[in-house]
Amino acid sequence: MTLHAPVPSVVANTHQMISPYIRRTPLVRSKGQGEIFLKCENLQLTGSFKVRGALSGLLNYRRFQPDVWSHMKSQGVVTCSSGNFAQALAYATTRLALDYTVIVPDQITPAKVAGIIGHDPGAHIVRVPYRTWQQTMLTGEHPEFPGFFLSCETDDYVTQGNGTVGLEIFEDLPTVDAVLVPYGGGNLTYSLATYFAGRGISVFAVEVTTGAALSASLRAGEPVEIEYSPSFVDGIGASFVLPQQFYRVKDVIAGVLTVTPEEVAEALGSLLLKDKMLAEGAGAAALAAARKYSDVYQWKYPCAIVSGATIDLPNLLGVLNDVPPEGYDNARH
Amino acid sequence: MTLHAPVPSVVANTHQMISPYIRRTPLVRSKGQGEIFLKCENLQLTGSFKVRGALSGLLNYRRFQPDVWSHMKSQGVVTCSSGNFAQALAYATTRLALDYTVIVPDQITPAKVAGIIGHDPGAHIVRVPYRTWQQTMLTGEHPEFPGFFLSCETDDYVTQGNGTVGLEIFEDLPTVDAVLVPYGGGNLTYSLATYFAGRGISVFAVEVTTGAALSASLRAGEPVEIEYSPSFVDGIGASFVLPQQFYRVKDVIAGVLTVTPEEVAEALGSLLLKDKMLAEGAGAAALAAARKYSDVYQWKYPCAIVSGATIDLPNLLGVLNDVPPEGYDNARH
Repeated sequence: MTLHAPVPSVVANTHQMISPYIRRTPLVRSKGQGEIFLKCENLQLTGSFKVRGALSGLLNYRRFQPDVWSHMKSQGVVTCSSGNFAQALAYATTRLALDYTVIVPDQITPAKVAGIIGHDPGAHIVRVPYRTWQQTMLTGEHPEFPGFFLSCETDDYVTQGNGTVGLEIFEDLPTVDAVLVPYGGGNLTYSLATYFAGRGISVFAVEVTTGAALSASLRAGEPVEIEYSPSFVDGIGASFVLPQQFYRVKDVIAGVLTVTPEEVAEALGSLLLKDKMLAEGAGAAALAAARKYSDVYQWKYPCAIVSGATIDLPNLLGVLNDVPPEGYDNARH
Repeated sequence: MTLHAPVPSVVANTHQMISPYIRRTPLVRSKGQGEIFLKCENLQLTGSFKVRGALSGLLNYRRFQPDVWSHMKSQGVVTCSSGNFAQALAYATTRLALDYTVIVPDQITPAKVAGIIGHDPGAHIVRVPYRTWQQTMLTGEHPEFPGFFLSCETDDYVTQGNGTVGLEIFEDLPTVDAVLVPYGGGNLTYSLATYFAGRGISVFAVEVTTGAALSASLRAGEPVEIEYSPSFVDGIGASFVLPQQFYRVKDVIAGVLTVTPEEVAEALGSLLLKDKMLAEGAGAAALAAARKYSDVYQWKYPCAIVSGATIDLPNLLGVLNDVPPEGYDNARH
C-alpha cells in the first residue's frame, strides 16, 4: 500500500481540503423496498461524486507538489473521460483558474458536451476515435498535449478524494455493515474498499449483467475482454477492466454483485418516485443490488452509493414509460 | 398575535421537539438560471413539509395539553386533506401510536390513497362529496367523528411546526433577503412571514394564474371566489381562500407573485434535470416565481420553498414530454 493510499487518516486531510468546494451530500434511508441507506452523490455539485476527486487532485498538487502545480498553471490540465469526470474537472479547473483540455470519444452526446461547456465555457474538447480514447484511458497519458494529465482512475490524489465519500458515510452511519459501489473504472470501489478495510466493513462492486467485465476477470483471475451490450446504464459496464485497477481492487473487495438493466430501471424509478431524486443508470445500480441481495447477505445497514445523475431525457423517459401502472412498492420509512 | 404565534423563540422549541422525527432538508443553490436558493422540503419524509406541522401538532399537545392528548389517545385524531397533510399525519399518528381518520374528497386519486395507506395501513379513509370536504376544510371540524380534529391550516401547533422551515433557512443562509412560498391553504406562508417579520426579511406568497384566489382577494380587500382551472399544479391554486388565513396573511406578507402553469413546468424540469430532484407542481412554483421576479425585485439571496414532491407519473411524463429538445438553460453554479 502506498504512502498515499486512501486510508482514513489520509482521507480526513483531503476531506478538509475539498470541503469548501463540494456539497456534503445527504445520507438517507431509502423510502423504497427494504432497509437500505443511500449516499446521495447524485445531488453532488456537477451531478456526481467525481468532483471530489477532481478537486482533491488539483488542491493536493497545489499544496504538496509545487512543481506539478507550476506545470498545471502554465500548461493546464488534461484528462480523458466521456462523462462525469469530464464535467467535474471542468468545474474544478474553472474554480482554480486553470486551463482545461478533455479528450472525448467522437460519438459523445451533445448533452455531455453541453455539460462540460456549462462548467467551463473555455474548455478544449478534443474528439478522438473510440479506440484512441480507450487507449488513452488505459495508459493514462496522451503525448500530444503539454498539460498535466490527471487520471480519474489511477491518480493517488484523485483516489483520496473519492475516499471522502467513505468518510461521510462512516460519520453519518457508523453502524454501516456493507457498502455497495457501482463499478465503472473502479477507482471509487478501490478507494472505498481501502477506506473501510481497517474498519471491517465489506465493500462490494456492482456491475450490470450486460457489461460485467470485473466478474469475468475475477473468475479468470486476470483481466479478460467480454461481450458488451450498450444500455441506458452507460456510466458502468464495459468490455474490459483497467488492469492496474483490477489487480488492486480484487484483494480489497468483498465480492462483485450483478444486476440486470431491468433491475436498475426499477431502482431508478423507485429513487425518482419514492425518494424524489434523479439518478443515472449507474447511480441506481447499487440500490438495485442492495434490493436484490440484502436478504441473501443479511445486511442490517447496507449503504448504496447513488453515484451520479447524468441521464438524458430520452433515456429517462424510456425508463419511466416502463414503470408498471400501479407504481412500485408502497412508500415506507 | 397569539401566545403561540410562530415567532423565532416559539419555533425554536418546536424544532427541538420534532427534530428526532424529521429530516433536516438541504438548502442548496439552484443549478438552473439565476442566483436562487432552494429549501428542499421535497426531500422531507412523506415527501413534503407537512410532516413538520403534523408532528408539532401531536407532540405539543402531548407535552402542554394533557387533556387533548388523552382525547387523542382514546378517540384518535381526525383531519381533512386530500394531499400532503393526509400522508404526513398518517406518518405522525403511526409513530405515536394514535388512531387516524382522514376525510378526503371522493374524487381522490388511487395514488394518494396508496400514499396514506403506505404510512398507516390502519388509517380510516372517509370519502365525502367535494362540497362536504370543502366545508370541513373551511370550518375545521366534522361532528360525525369523535377524534380530535387537527387542522393543517389553523392549528397553532401545526403552524409552529411549519415555522421550523424558516428556522432552518435562517441558520443555513443568514443573508437570505426574500423567501418565496407556494400559497395552498396559506398556513406555510403565514407561518414563515411571521417567523421572518422581526428579521426584516420579505416573504412572498406564490400563486398559479389558473387559481389565484389570494391575488384576487387582496385586490378586493376581502375573500372572493374566482374561476379556477385545474392543471398539473394541484397542490396550490383554488377558487377560494380560507377567510381566517386570508386576514392574518394579508398584513404579514410582502406581496403575492403569480406564475403560469408553463412557467411552473419549466421550473419543474429544471429542478429535475439540473438539480436532480423531483418536485410536484406546487413545489416548483416558488422557483418559477424566483426565476421570473428576481431581476425586478433585485434580490441577492432569494430562497424558494420546494414544498413537496407528490406528483403522479402521468403528470410528470406530461411535463417532461414538453421539455424543449435542447434542454433548459445550461448548468452553472
